[in-house]
Amino acid sequence: MTSSTCKTCDSNSCSAQNIRANESQQDFLDRQMLMQRMCKIKNKILVLSGKGGVGKSTVAVNLAMALALKGKKVGLLDADIHGPSIPKLLNLESAKISVSNNTIFPIIYDNILKVMSIGFFLENRDDAVIWRGPRKFGLIKQFLKDVDWGELDYLIFDLPPGTGDEPLSICQLIEKPDGAVIVTTPQSIAISDVRKSVNFCRELDLPILGVIENMSGFICPKCGELTYIFSHGGAKKMAEEMKIPFLGEIPLDPNIVKKCDSGNPFISQNNNSHASIAFNNIIQLIIKK
Amino acid sequence: MTSSTCKTCDSNSCSAQNIRANESQQDFLDRQMLMQRMCKIKNKILVLSGKGGVGKSTVAVNLAMALALKGKKVGLLDADIHGPSIPKLLNLESAKISVSNNTIFPIIYDNILKVMSIGFFLENRDDAVIWRGPRKFGLIKQFLKDVDWGELDYLIFDLPPGTGDEPLSICQLIEKPDGAVIVTTPQSIAISDVRKSVNFCRELDLPILGVIENMSGFICPKCGELTYIFSHGGAKKMAEEMKIPFLGEIPLDPNIVKKCDSGNPFISQNNNSHASIAFNNIIQLIIKK
Repeated sequence: MTSSTCKTCDSNSCSAQNIRANESQQDFLDRQMLMQRMCKIKNKILVLSGKGGVGKSTVAVNLAMALALKGKKVGLLDADIHGPSIPKLLNLESAKISVSNNTIFPIIYDNILKVMSIGFFLENRDDAVIWRGPRKFGLIKQFLKDVDWGELDYLIFDLPPGTGDEPLSICQLIEKPDGAVIVTTPQSIAISDVRKSVNFCRELDLPILGVIENMSGFICPKCGELTYIFSHGGAKKMAEEMKIPFLGEIPLDPNIVKKCDSGNPFISQNNNSHASIAFNNIIQLIIKK
Repeated sequence: MTSSTCKTCDSNSCSAQNIRANESQQDFLDRQMLMQRMCKIKNKILVLSGKGGVGKSTVAVNLAMALALKGKKVGLLDADIHGPSIPKLLNLESAKISVSNNTIFPIIYDNILKVMSIGFFLENRDDAVIWRGPRKFGLIKQFLKDVDWGELDYLIFDLPPGTGDEPLSICQLIEKPDGAVIVTTPQSIAISDVRKSVNFCRELDLPILGVIENMSGFICPKCGELTYIFSHGGAKKMAEEMKIPFLGEIPLDPNIVKKCDSGNPFISQNNNSHASIAFNNIIQLIIKK
């Protein structure tokens, strides 16, 4: 049995200290390194969705920026290996990564937000990442182990949709994430998938900070008519049924799409649109938790 | 070297006939069984998307139903292990699967469509399928090998979004799918992901039947104002750039969402809405190819 004290937290109870059964020496050293990085991060929040295309990455970017704008030290990790959106959402597609002595340095966005994404490592923006589980697991481990996040108040993880390899790997690797925010759209088919995310969190003992209903109604810019294109209220009802907090609704707003497509976080734009107010209210609830 | 003639196509050139290097006897027998099933299916079409939530399953269901309504023999395989949508989209959530002598019998929808989904095997609709790659591969192989599709004109595969394990496994297992239909939404971030799907198809020598732009504009039901909530025209431009066929645009329509949520294919409803006409035109183009 190899034993050591965590160099960062100087604690005997840190789970990095002892080698586990069936763990190789290299796996132990990797895990120790990873735990030492993670020890310096106060809050690790996962942004999840049962289904893709519900605005999960938009929520992750805006949550991270809202925290950073409040003066918190924040990191944002894009763990969506097959569809990394963060470089585009923050207009960082041409950013170059710096690596030194097996340490990967995150990109600093707007002087306040540390960002890491597999998108930064793809030679061509159109490359398909056709990888199987074990290779993906290795990359996620490297992200967590080798990225020099430094001391952070918050690390926000933008996970791929579903309940597959990546969210499972991250939960196993960082051992104790502080909580998950689940994003959904209102229609019944999306709610059905989000129930699976709730059960995924419960199986992994991951606290659920709450659920957000995105794309919740559209106000016609000409006549002001409100249409619930994707239905309405499904997430709130599901949250009540499953006894998890409901954080609020964000309406469909073409301005959110425009901001995303031009690589600007929506939250940093000072405006009084329904969507902006809704977004800010939700983020306040998450921060308070 | 074990050798055999395909029992179904009675051909020496069928790739089921010879055991491959490094292939176990069981893997060989499984592959032979699988090829014998696949031999009976004239056209295997994959419905793909680079990003989730773009309406891929809706397109798959309606494409399958449109073909079936034209008198074709059609099967629909829901290969989205983490978020199987087909049982809900066809109101088959309480359907019971029948298994006999290692043969799984598909559910018959509306007397004309054979349907298989992992959703039928989940005890609870809210269960999360927290599986890693190898286990997923095994299930997909079983679907292809053990499901008694019989003779079909078309088998439509509804794949999970992205370029990961499931689409890769299916392409490897069935060896030569006839083509892929790629579904996207118009915003730049979705188009960026769909380029990856195009390259995924090219790397795997999978012919691309074309790309569909879904959620392409919303007409206010009160004043008729057209708003491009998710932007417009991105898919057509991308298709031209990447030299793939553009199949058409489907507008955002709350009626499509309502039909989906109530488990009815949109295509079987006789109506003259913009969305219905657009859908029919696209399906004609796919069938002609």
